Amino acid sequence: MKQSWKPGTTIYPLPAVLVSCGNTPEEYNLITVSWVGTLCTNPPMCYISVRPERHSYEILRKNMEFVINLTTVQMAKATDWCGVSSGKNYNKFEKTGLTPKTAQIVKAPYVEESPLCIECKVREREQSQRIRFRIEAGIIRFFYRKIQFQKTLYTTRSGHASVPYPAI
Amino acid sequence: MKQSWKPGTTIYPLPAVLVSCGNTPEEYNLITVSWVGTLCTNPPMCYISVRPERHSYEILRKNMEFVINLTTVQMAKATDWCGVSSGKNYNKFEKTGLTPKTAQIVKAPYVEESPLCIECKVREREQSQRIRFRIEAGIIRFFYRKIQFQKTLYTTRSGHASVPYPAI
Repeated sequence: MKQSWKPGTTIYPLPAVLVSCGNTPEEYNLITVSWVGTLCTNPPMCYISVRPERHSYEILRKNMEFVINLTTVQMAKATDWCGVSSGKNYNKFEKTGLTPKTAQIVKAPYVEESPLCIECKVREREQSQRIRFRIEAGIIRFFYRKIQFQKTLYTTRSGHASVPYPAI
Repeated sequence: MKQSWKPGTTIYPLPAVLVSCGNTPEEYNLITVSWVGTLCTNPPMCYISVRPERHSYEILRKNMEFVINLTTVQMAKATDWCGVSSGKNYNKFEKTGLTPKTAQIVKAPYVEESPLCIECKVREREQSQRIRFRIEAGIIRFFYRKIQFQKTLYTTRSGHASVPYPAI
């Protein structure tokens, strides 16, 4: 016997990633995102959903580049905090102690502490009543630390947990 | 020190879901999808990516409705098999022993063995060189079995594993 509920977001688990953006150190910002996923295998395309009210949205809109950083148990506190605080009020790299590093292709920094980082270039933004904030992006490069079975964070209905991310 | 790789699909974990479709028992089909996620919280919107070559694509295109069924350890073999076999050659419900049940709003069946099912109506299809097969859909209803911490399947680079899906 199943119980029926009104429509809601129930597709889980999803990765809890930190999206880093900004062309200059003054502009650098971090935003926690779980509305993230793969759209296409070849060419490799992904999406993130970021509400226009978020501080990062304007930075993403202007620069059309960002990095997706997978997160770990060690980064859990910072990942949570970056999801509830605004870059309008804080320098999130300074506050969390996470380290911005210069990426290879995009101007947005990557997070040094992340085990796997994905450089992305925005191909399309959709902003409508139906989808308020979807951003489609091409995956142009990724790089990782070669640690066997690093545990990365995911999101579920009740918070974060971690699962092994197998060696590549 | 990080290693650099060419672009690829590296955002994990993602749920391994069975998408059920078809307006009539003769048309019913199942397809395993991990390119699935949430696009928007309010209104609740999700996406699935299905290549036009897949048997389910034409059924989805015609009917514009489907059900996302989360999967469990008990359904792992069926979930794997439905990802590598075609509905052109098999009645997948018969072959897997999974049970199609009449949904409440859409004509597509849901999978009785799934712990959580999400009825969806297609709002937009994108088919282009860049994104070959994205389908955006509104989540119109979900229903579930009230089992504490049922374990649902997810996909990673090296296969399937399972994590607890907390009680709703």
